[in-house]
Amino acid sequence: MTRGSLSCNMAAGSLPVALLVLLSRVSGFPLGQEEPKLTCGYESCHATKPNMLNVHLVPHTHDDVGWLKTVDQYYYGDRNDIQHAGVQYILDSVVDQLLKNPDRRFIYVETAFFYRWWKQQSPSMQQTVKELVNEGRLEFVNGGWCMSDEATTHYSAVIDQMTMGLRFLNETFGPCGRPRVAWHIDPFGHAREHASMFAQMGYDGFFFGRLDYQDRTRRQSAREQELLWRASDSLEPPMADLFTGILPNGYNPPEGFCWDQSCDDPPIRDDPDLEDYNVDDVVRRFLAIANHQAKVYKTNHIIMTMGSDFQYENANLWYKNLDKLIRYVNAQQADGVGVNVLYSTPSCYLQELHRANLTWALKTDDFFPYADAAHDYWTGYFTSRPALKRYERISNSNLQTCNQLEVLGGPVSRNGPFGKADSQTMKEAMAVAQHHDAVSGTEKQHVANDYARRLASGWQHCQVVVSNSLSALSGSSAERIYCDRLNISVCPLTESSEKFSVHVYNPLARPVTWPVRLPVNGSSYDVSDAEGRSVDCQVVPVSAQTAAVRRSRGFAVNELVFQAQAPPLGFTTYSVSLLRDGPPPASTQRRVPAAIQNQFLRVTFDPDTGLLSSLTNLETKRTIKLTQNFYWYNASDGHNSESDQPSGAYIFRPNSSTPFIISKTAKTESVQTPVLQEVRQWFAPWVSQVVRLHRDSRALELEWTVGPLPISDDLGKEVITRLDTSIKTSEYFYTDSNGREVLQRKKDFRPTWKLRQSEPIAGNYYPINSRAFIKDDVDQLTVVTDRSQGGGSIQNGSLEIMLHRRLLHDDVRGVAEPLNETSSVFPDGLVVRGRLLLSLDRPPSAADAHRPLAQQVVLQPTLTFTDGDLHPDTRLEFSGLQAALPPAVHLLTLTQWDEDSVLLRLEHQFQSGESKRNSGPVTVNLQKLFSTLEVLGGSELNLSANQWKDEMTRFHWTPQTGEEPLLKTLGDPSAWEVTLRPMEIRTFLLRVRLR
Amino acid sequence: MTRGSLSCNMAAGSLPVALLVLLSRVSGFPLGQEEPKLTCGYESCHATKPNMLNVHLVPHTHDDVGWLKTVDQYYYGDRNDIQHAGVQYILDSVVDQLLKNPDRRFIYVETAFFYRWWKQQSPSMQQTVKELVNEGRLEFVNGGWCMSDEATTHYSAVIDQMTMGLRFLNETFGPCGRPRVAWHIDPFGHAREHASMFAQMGYDGFFFGRLDYQDRTRRQSAREQELLWRASDSLEPPMADLFTGILPNGYNPPEGFCWDQSCDDPPIRDDPDLEDYNVDDVVRRFLAIANHQAKVYKTNHIIMTMGSDFQYENANLWYKNLDKLIRYVNAQQADGVGVNVLYSTPSCYLQELHRANLTWALKTDDFFPYADAAHDYWTGYFTSRPALKRYERISNSNLQTCNQLEVLGGPVSRNGPFGKADSQTMKEAMAVAQHHDAVSGTEKQHVANDYARRLASGWQHCQVVVSNSLSALSGSSAERIYCDRLNISVCPLTESSEKFSVHVYNPLARPVTWPVRLPVNGSSYDVSDAEGRSVDCQVVPVSAQTAAVRRSRGFAVNELVFQAQAPPLGFTTYSVSLLRDGPPPASTQRRVPAAIQNQFLRVTFDPDTGLLSSLTNLETKRTIKLTQNFYWYNASDGHNSESDQPSGAYIFRPNSSTPFIISKTAKTESVQTPVLQEVRQWFAPWVSQVVRLHRDSRALELEWTVGPLPISDDLGKEVITRLDTSIKTSEYFYTDSNGREVLQRKKDFRPTWKLRQSEPIAGNYYPINSRAFIKDDVDQLTVVTDRSQGGGSIQNGSLEIMLHRRLLHDDVRGVAEPLNETSSVFPDGLVVRGRLLLSLDRPPSAADAHRPLAQQVVLQPTLTFTDGDLHPDTRLEFSGLQAALPPAVHLLTLTQWDEDSVLLRLEHQFQSGESKRNSGPVTVNLQKLFSTLEVLGGSELNLSANQWKDEMTRFHWTPQTGEEPLLKTLGDPSAWEVTLRPMEIRTFLLRVRLR
Repeated sequence: MTRGSLSCNMAAGSLPVALLVLLSRVSGFPLGQEEPKLTCGYESCHATKPNMLNVHLVPHTHDDVGWLKTVDQYYYGDRNDIQHAGVQYILDSVVDQLLKNPDRRFIYVETAFFYRWWKQQSPSMQQTVKELVNEGRLEFVNGGWCMSDEATTHYSAVIDQMTMGLRFLNETFGPCGRPRVAWHIDPFGHAREHASMFAQMGYDGFFFGRLDYQDRTRRQSAREQELLWRASDSLEPPMADLFTGILPNGYNPPEGFCWDQSCDDPPIRDDPDLEDYNVDDVVRRFLAIANHQAKVYKTNHIIMTMGSDFQYENANLWYKNLDKLIRYVNAQQADGVGVNVLYSTPSCYLQELHRANLTWALKTDDFFPYADAAHDYWTGYFTSRPALKRYERISNSNLQTCNQLEVLGGPVSRNGPFGKADSQTMKEAMAVAQHHDAVSGTEKQHVANDYARRLASGWQHCQVVVSNSLSALSGSSAERIYCDRLNISVCPLTESSEKFSVHVYNPLARPVTWPVRLPVNGSSYDVSDAEGRSVDCQVVPVSAQTAAVRRSRGFAVNELVFQAQAPPLGFTTYSVSLLRDGPPPASTQRRVPAAIQNQFLRVTFDPDTGLLSSLTNLETKRTIKLTQNFYWYNASDGHNSESDQPSGAYIFRPNSSTPFIISKTAKTESVQTPVLQEVRQWFAPWVSQVVRLHRDSRALELEWTVGPLPISDDLGKEVITRLDTSIKTSEYFYTDSNGREVLQRKKDFRPTWKLRQSEPIAGNYYPINSRAFIKDDVDQLTVVTDRSQGGGSIQNGSLEIMLHRRLLHDDVRGVAEPLNETSSVFPDGLVVRGRLLLSLDRPPSAADAHRPLAQQVVLQPTLTFTDGDLHPDTRLEFSGLQAALPPAVHLLTLTQWDEDSVLLRLEHQFQSGESKRNSGPVTVNLQKLFSTLEVLGGSELNLSANQWKDEMTRFHWTPQTGEEPLLKTLGDPSAWEVTLRPMEIRTFLLRVRLR
Repeated sequence: MTRGSLSCNMAAGSLPVALLVLLSRVSGFPLGQEEPKLTCGYESCHATKPNMLNVHLVPHTHDDVGWLKTVDQYYYGDRNDIQHAGVQYILDSVVDQLLKNPDRRFIYVETAFFYRWWKQQSPSMQQTVKELVNEGRLEFVNGGWCMSDEATTHYSAVIDQMTMGLRFLNETFGPCGRPRVAWHIDPFGHAREHASMFAQMGYDGFFFGRLDYQDRTRRQSAREQELLWRASDSLEPPMADLFTGILPNGYNPPEGFCWDQSCDDPPIRDDPDLEDYNVDDVVRRFLAIANHQAKVYKTNHIIMTMGSDFQYENANLWYKNLDKLIRYVNAQQADGVGVNVLYSTPSCYLQELHRANLTWALKTDDFFPYADAAHDYWTGYFTSRPALKRYERISNSNLQTCNQLEVLGGPVSRNGPFGKADSQTMKEAMAVAQHHDAVSGTEKQHVANDYARRLASGWQHCQVVVSNSLSALSGSSAERIYCDRLNISVCPLTESSEKFSVHVYNPLARPVTWPVRLPVNGSSYDVSDAEGRSVDCQVVPVSAQTAAVRRSRGFAVNELVFQAQAPPLGFTTYSVSLLRDGPPPASTQRRVPAAIQNQFLRVTFDPDTGLLSSLTNLETKRTIKLTQNFYWYNASDGHNSESDQPSGAYIFRPNSSTPFIISKTAKTESVQTPVLQEVRQWFAPWVSQVVRLHRDSRALELEWTVGPLPISDDLGKEVITRLDTSIKTSEYFYTDSNGREVLQRKKDFRPTWKLRQSEPIAGNYYPINSRAFIKDDVDQLTVVTDRSQGGGSIQNGSLEIMLHRRLLHDDVRGVAEPLNETSSVFPDGLVVRGRLLLSLDRPPSAADAHRPLAQQVVLQPTLTFTDGDLHPDTRLEFSGLQAALPPAVHLLTLTQWDEDSVLLRLEHQFQSGESKRNSGPVTVNLQKLFSTLEVLGGSELNLSANQWKDEMTRFHWTPQTGEEPLLKTLGDPSAWEVTLRPMEIRTFLLRVRLR
């Protein structure tokens, strides 16, 4: 149990104890207690019959962590008028029914719900459930807090939510609670990065339900519905190899065999004294389905998912009929029928596939976009609810700040001058928000509101942690003010105060420069840094865009802008004072300037249209033509000769492939100062933009403001911005997967089947989580986004990104609401604001710019404010690191695990070969990482932190290429020097104490 | 245990043994086994708090024995697309949940379902359920096979179905399985005769849910929702006194407190960590409802029915929330809230009302008609599905014949030359048909078909019993042919045979004369009786009416008519031979005769219209004016300024109070022969009638044929026949209650509240089960019906009876189908035929005619046929009685109970005072009853045969009149001579053997 531990310069005797303590906490078994003999997992599977077709019946429920109802409404079974669903009852009922027949099996997936249920159970019920788990009768699959969306989630939040769910299972049930199988039966397309993460989390296999209808057809005839997914270009196989199975009926039972209370299929009526005895008919129908299904799979094992959304609330209905089905079908074996039906689980089914010892088709791309019919591309949700998507993304940034400061500030962070709090509320809110009907934007409006409210509540808790921690680290218990509406220039403190401090916490492991922009009412200010040096700053008039958007929530007339520089994993402080006799604010010019530029970039404008006309990288001396404008697609209302599919929360279906231009010209005004230069563009009362260049910035900022989308013409609208360039893209473009590795996309093309394109726009849209780029041999234009969005490259040299959607029809995928967002502040339709950051580089070095740029957007500085003068003893600057980490290394996770240990994830953030400078292996010394934390011991874990890395064994699968998997030799596991290879994430549990 | 036994001339030592054997079989405990100490029934009730308001929560399910789905579909949960309901799962689930908390209670009502479930359970589950019953945690209430309809059922079939259900409970569970409470929560109005029967079955009290909305309002303000119902004018109190409680919310839970899976009320959300914690709100709402309810009831106990139709399929939802409700509400007691909530049952609630020792309002009328709003009178179902109603009634007759012959024929009846069979299938079919959505006609069409199919199947089984028995009694094993379509002159045997025998079995305990009418193709026949004497007979041409109705199912051109005379409880035989040279068939005359008459009656016709014009009783020499015609009410389609209520299966709502006349004149033809005289009347292609007078008959027969009702005008139609007479009725008329006692009705009047009449026709309709009459001081015109029908007396001297209904709209009471009957034989709409028998008498002696006449219609002779010559040794005549019973005594039940005992019910069929001749007490000697059965021993039972009569003790209740209940002294219980008082039914279990 000490393998994989890291030695450190501690007294020799203390290490094993420290590690044992850690291990006991991770595995859930208290120190010194003998693990009981268990027959869970693969050992608990029912025997199969080698010479028969074995049908694995998998009883399951699919419990959305919010969709038509909120997660808590689903838990309790509240608002059954919206949808009949009550998870508390599902778990009650399943446990009861499992106890009635030891053959029965059930899998449970969503720990967000299981956790709620578990804490309401009596100790004896908890013991009963433990026994069911230990006997493999109740098996957890997937096991994260939720079943995350794959298109719109960021890997950092996905890893967090998986870690939280799996940790609960580990601590509650030990090894028998560890899922062997990943299970994403509902998400609407599948990201390669998710597969990579699941592989690194130790899953033996992965099952899902939805894929493109053409892809399925081909795979059925080729018997390639089970395959080996090689999910990384960078990680050495089989590190990111994941066996992947496509389920036969989505995740539903075969037709006619749904026995849930929500279904109407005929029960098995086996009392010959009553009417309608139907056993013979049921057996006949079942055998026909099983034999048909066996024809499109490779082995003599097939799986049937016996359940669906929120099913098993009354599990008796299912099990009573399944018991009978198994009895009556297997009774046919005496008559020579070669079908064997059994209760099973995904892992038991997977084990049989593994035992078959076959080779499997290799897949290296992903499963986007997903279409379930020719005109039904699920590419709208890549953008749906853009405000929620942004709020989720910034909440992740806030949570990471909270996590880090909880560690760096020590115990006082959780119980300090500003009260008691911890990061748990925020963690749960973020975990819930990863659900495939949460950040995806495919939930009902009231549920979207609930997700946002949870994030807000989480941040309230975290603000206490952050205040406590910063108070400890700075030595000042002055009240800290948070201004969460700086994006619309609202902050009561800065608007009214004549003297205040701005504290900039940087959650990245390297220093950042960040433009601070504060609403003020004065005309001139002095800003000085932690050393007391005056900093260049500029007061500019608040733009008319902002004044319109903030809608009486603030009245600042000016904004104070300066560039803040913050140390790695630390904070710095700027003092701001109103100047009575300072210079006036910058003036705005009505005409468009020919160009704006800083030391790195030059941007020109067309004087006739007011639009961008070119972009030049002054370092590389490369210029591209670049025009940019805003357009809207007319969302199909479903009245169409080809199909009656409307655009909706899930589905993007434009009525025409040609978008409507909003305005060929922009009204402009500009502000040009040494600190920043802005061209403010108006395209319509509901579309405007600020083109902005900060001093020292290598990225051009396009701050767009879109909304309320007008619907008085009864036309649903999907607004895009399109960048048209001189880059010769040859129909290729590139998008990231969950914010990590980048995949190449080609117009009207799929790597694994011959595409019949039926939606020239929607069928060419892909999720953009953090960036997209277009390139040719000499130029690469990268766009870093501040949230997940959908986009495509329809014309060569062009990249379009969908910003906002307002739809008047439901798209008939269940949500039963048009995506038509309004609120009390925006009764006439939601206004959304966001940023695109453009970087023009030579392709071989583009990643050196966009990798750190994107991380800076994902983990942005957290600003806090204090009013008036600070106590002179206040520490104004702090870094939690001994030194900035190398550019290739991203500090992905630093969070308190328990009282004396922390979870650390270090990530190599470059892909193999994408950067000459940064794509090599890089080594970090864990002992020399932190400035204030002494590392007493540590162990490496799998990505999800529920297994010791060196105890993680996975099934080996052989691809059809015939290659033998490389069994990679890791470096000396006992060294503190840990090496990261491209795109590698390493996870450590460290025992620490504050120095 | 020998109290109440009857001595007989047997060896002295043998009697106690015989009785013990009987007792052991009735009670369900084998001989010699000690009864376990039990705390079921009243002893198992939870304690209440005398100084608080006690709220009795009664978890229950209401499981229709067929309605939208068939009984077996309901049992299995099949066709959940029609209605989500599966009784197997309800019982599974409730038992599971009762085991989780010993405080929980459940009541179960419908033994038809419980029996199906019980026989599929394992012995250990059966033992578990017995323990729950023995501890009073699962309690049976009502306990009949079904919850019978009260308006359209005949008492004989109701007693049978109650007996069957209660017997199963008795034999399965012993005393703890005996219901203490009758429970008719759903029937649509309440019959006094039902109350009388329940009293005689030993129930301590009765609860129901539906009553007239005006009645409820008055009773609420008077706190008279609980009352003492004196349910007989004849039986001495308290013999037919029944404490009756009206439930507060029909049978539903109070608003906002339905926690079934079928409901959407908010669950109790008591985890303060989750959203929407609502315990305080739930408690507040519950207390408000409880306190409000307490204001309209008399004691500090109130009842809440926590359940509804097919609820508790997932009982966990209910109980989990009820547990919480009880916990959180009672927790308020510590804060001085005086409300105590408890799990309870109707009997536990009843016990508390009894302990209150109050006096209760006395009620002597009934609860018909039922209206739930001003224009919503549930008086349509009195007639709905007239063909099913008739088929149910004749099936009862067949079943009683089957029962009797099963006894009289001995064991060979069940296993004889025609195969193995018993009466059980028919008993179950009849029991199921008593359900309040069966014979009531308020089920969906496919369910009505299922009831009919079950009755047909039952009769198939019974035909084997009857054939076996008659074979044994007659000594002839010649094949017996059954002709079930004689009413439309279809019988392949008589149509084709030149020589055959007709066997007439009479199930009455007195001889009958019965007109036999057989389809034949010959012109002349000889008919001779069992003595070989020739019998007057007549061949008449088949009427055009019949030829039209039978629709190619037969082609007989003539009918052979003769009067058969059959001995009591026995059969006789008539031989029929074709005569080659006999007289031709009677000829028909085109013109209407001035009159037809026999020795008892004279009927005149209006020569201009062809309608009846007068009726004369030639014995009493009284003549009344009598015209009779057919009309239709236009059924409301719901588009109406007063209310949007349409006529439907339940509700009768004519668009106008004036019915449309079908034709002012009738086309006629007549047949006049010494054997019978007929005037055949045509009113329309879809309405015709035969006015018929048989020789020796004291009743005038009106055989009506109605249908298909035309709907091409898009008007729903409700067809009545109306008798307009010179009788001075002064707004009174009279209808029977379930075929027994007669109640006086008065136009626009209710005996217990001041009626605001809002539906002048529908609000004056009452159920007619077997008869209705109008009378004045000198004349009484009684109409005996052949099925249940609705009717009224809207004008003085007038009596109308609704015959058939065809409706185009659903009446929004759940059945969700318009009552628009078609079939493969009648694709253009159902044709229905029936008979009214008219008797004109002096009022003091009218009952002497209508009592036997009605019984003769209810228990009509069963005809069987044998082809060719009978073996000369064949016994042609038989009576099971030593002598006919006195006119006042009706043999209600004679059926095999077990191998050596039979159940006998004798009934005094006259009301107190209705007949000078027959209303006195009458004595019968049980030992001298049967000709072929030796009575070895016997005991008297309660009416439902689940308790020894002398062990039956009931709660005593004091009416507000202040009277003290008479404790009636019965005659010597050990005598074989048993005396019957008016309207008394006495039930005996007799140990018999064939002499």
